[in-house]
Amino acid sequence: MPVIDFRLRPPLKGFLDMIMYAGGERRDRLTRQHGMEPAPSAQAQSMPLLLAEMDAAGVTLGVVMGRCSGVYGAVSNQDVADIVQTYPGRFVGIGSIDPSNRKAAMGQIEEALALGLKGINIEPGAYAEPMLADDRRLYPIYACCEDRGIPVTVMVGGSAGPDLSYTIPVHIDRVAGDFPGLRIALSHGAWPWVQQILHVAYRRPNVYVSPDQYLCNMPGMNDYILAANGFLAERFLYASSYPFIGVKDYADWFRRLPLKPGLMEQLMYGNAARFLGFAG
Amino acid sequence: MPVIDFRLRPPLKGFLDMIMYAGGERRDRLTRQHGMEPAPSAQAQSMPLLLAEMDAAGVTLGVVMGRCSGVYGAVSNQDVADIVQTYPGRFVGIGSIDPSNRKAAMGQIEEALALGLKGINIEPGAYAEPMLADDRRLYPIYACCEDRGIPVTVMVGGSAGPDLSYTIPVHIDRVAGDFPGLRIALSHGAWPWVQQILHVAYRRPNVYVSPDQYLCNMPGMNDYILAANGFLAERFLYASSYPFIGVKDYADWFRRLPLKPGLMEQLMYGNAARFLGFAG
Amino acid sequence: MPVIDFRLRPPLKGFLDMIMYAGGERRDRLTRQHGMEPAPSAQAQSMPLLLAEMDAAGVTLGVVMGRCSGVYGAVSNQDVADIVQTYPGRFVGIGSIDPSNRKAAMGQIEEALALGLKGINIEPGAYAEPMLADDRRLYPIYACCEDRGIPVTVMVGGSAGPDLSYTIPVHIDRVAGDFPGLRIALSHGAWPWVQQILHVAYRRPNVYVSPDQYLCNMPGMNDYILAANGFLAERFLYASSYPFIGVKDYADWFRRLPLKPGLMEQLMYGNAARFLGFAG
Repeated sequence: MPVIDFRLRPPLKGFLDMIMYAGGERRDRLTRQHGMEPAPSAQAQSMPLLLAEMDAAGVTLGVVMGRCSGVYGAVSNQDVADIVQTYPGRFVGIGSIDPSNRKAAMGQIEEALALGLKGINIEPGAYAEPMLADDRRLYPIYACCEDRGIPVTVMVGGSAGPDLSYTIPVHIDRVAGDFPGLRIALSHGAWPWVQQILHVAYRRPNVYVSPDQYLCNMPGMNDYILAANGFLAERFLYASSYPFIGVKDYADWFRRLPLKPGLMEQLMYGNAARFLGFAG
Repeated sequence: MPVIDFRLRPPLKGFLDMIMYAGGERRDRLTRQHGMEPAPSAQAQSMPLLLAEMDAAGVTLGVVMGRCSGVYGAVSNQDVADIVQTYPGRFVGIGSIDPSNRKAAMGQIEEALALGLKGINIEPGAYAEPMLADDRRLYPIYACCEDRGIPVTVMVGGSAGPDLSYTIPVHIDRVAGDFPGLRIALSHGAWPWVQQILHVAYRRPNVYVSPDQYLCNMPGMNDYILAANGFLAERFLYASSYPFIGVKDYADWFRRLPLKPGLMEQLMYGNAARFLGFAG
Repeated sequence: MPVIDFRLRPPLKGFLDMIMYAGGERRDRLTRQHGMEPAPSAQAQSMPLLLAEMDAAGVTLGVVMGRCSGVYGAVSNQDVADIVQTYPGRFVGIGSIDPSNRKAAMGQIEEALALGLKGINIEPGAYAEPMLADDRRLYPIYACCEDRGIPVTVMVGGSAGPDLSYTIPVHIDRVAGDFPGLRIALSHGAWPWVQQILHVAYRRPNVYVSPDQYLCNMPGMNDYILAANGFLAERFLYASSYPFIGVKDYADWFRRLPLKPGLMEQLMYGNAARFLGFAG
């Protein structure tokens, strides 16, 4: 059974400058807050170890998302493409844009497609000037992606912004309603607004939910699981959020959850493949 | 044991023009999102089938609520009264008002009472111009109903409005606090704001909660059940939200929930009877 | 094993004028909403009975918090100190301030310290003019307490304010982020925003959570317990919120929760001792 880990940041390029690698102590503290131990590959910043952990976890593909953020650092579209090309068959790339300059952002979308990337990543609360998911400056991006059939990932949830107001699902609800033809995947699953985001997914058929690390031993996990076993079965996306949780540790933990066995293939692979537009 | 299904829309009058009947495919998709199958009576739009399903479910009375909404359609007070009279002893009627015209709304309240309807239904997010539950234009309606002892049902929850902001319980909390003598029943139970609305019910003794379809296999259901077995035992209202869930299917499902057996009569009948002002 | 009950209001001084004692019927109704029976000491307003209940519960210390609120009544810093001195070794005192007058508030902080009180209690929604936890008038208080190493308790949760908007955790999230060196304990645990406040505690290492009475048979309790068994293990504070729940009844109930046995000492004592700055 193939598995797509929908959020996986290898120790390469600009990721190494982000707190997920540069701030190892903070990362390890967060890992332990989930009841998990730091992954050897994360601590050693080792690609061979990471690839071995992916193999051991049965993770065939990792989704690498670019970032274009003042405070949180950057991984350019070219960098994402380089990662994908350096490790053939192991990663899928998602590009990113800077919404503060509309025309440049349109160029970044073109660039991402030309580089073979499969979607565009939006991180509203993480931009140099933090914004909400329904900020007017993002609407040309959403419109372009809807028109051209490009799926978008939006980081809403967790600590994605200066405070809790940036993750409240009202804003992504509006986006999903205003662009009904746009496929939207929510990284961090709008945690901790678990009951609220599951309403959004119930109402909006174009919304996919990826709770990633915030599924792992966090309050609300039973609500995510109830939905994944029910109406969210075709739109739940599996992700470890590595390096915050080890690829192998997360996979082992996930496979022991009370999920319907018949759903595991679509939860861990099929939904992501469809979202990314892979040929059947 | 008599049973009142507090939200039940028969295939008659203006209901037939609403998406619940006119958009059968969408309705059936939502039904299946709850893990249920469409009811034969809903698909056939058949009153004989519905009455048979009510009999099989042991549902003695269905509460039919009028609607006065641009986008969502309308069922006038006269139509509600006609339904009640056409099927004697099977339905109880609740009227509706148009809050955009205060004087006309006062007339609609008079009309509803004259027609024998038992309360007034308010749907803040569903009006031609969507509003919040504590919109100033609704305050004369609430005031009139409080003064005259008329119970109100308020649709707060689910997809009741353009987006998630219309269901956030802050607004109904204010209404309940400002009109402490007004009996308020919340259709759709303010879902998905489950923990929040249960606080409102904990704090405000005049608030009744009817999660209806959003109890059914939805995130937060265990919180509703915990409250129904506890402090909400005297203010929980049973409802299927038919035709979104079959009257019979919902009743079968509900009776298997881990609710205290000694509470079933009040959850399924007594609370609604008291709310509606039925003589003991 | 010593036990600190982090919120315990004895029937003394200004507490007697508050609804918790003056409105016994309302208090008893709330107690029963938690599935508990009123404590004999609360109904009799008896200190000997309360001390006996504390002994029977194994509660060695109760935290008495001052209050400086128009609507909710007042217990001055001097009154708190008198209570502590009258019952040596049974109570720890926390002072309070009036944020409507910055200079007077600074004097109240000095007074509290001089009287041997261990922290400052802030009740944003309960002031004569209700405010949010991140109101600018509170910022000088927070700043002073951070600079001087004084822990603060903030009442956010339950019915702490005119409506539900006063307890939404966005505001305390900002405070915790703006004053990272300030130890903050949340009385009433920001209930009912359970999933949200647990995110704040996950993100902000300076936030302690004390759900007190709102843990007791309330929706969301399983989320609090999951966190207390996990990342909140070092920052969960045990409290009965007496007289709303009996000291003994709460302790018996709490000890039967599915909490990890090895954590009970820190949940019921160690975390509070560290928060209050007790010598190891």
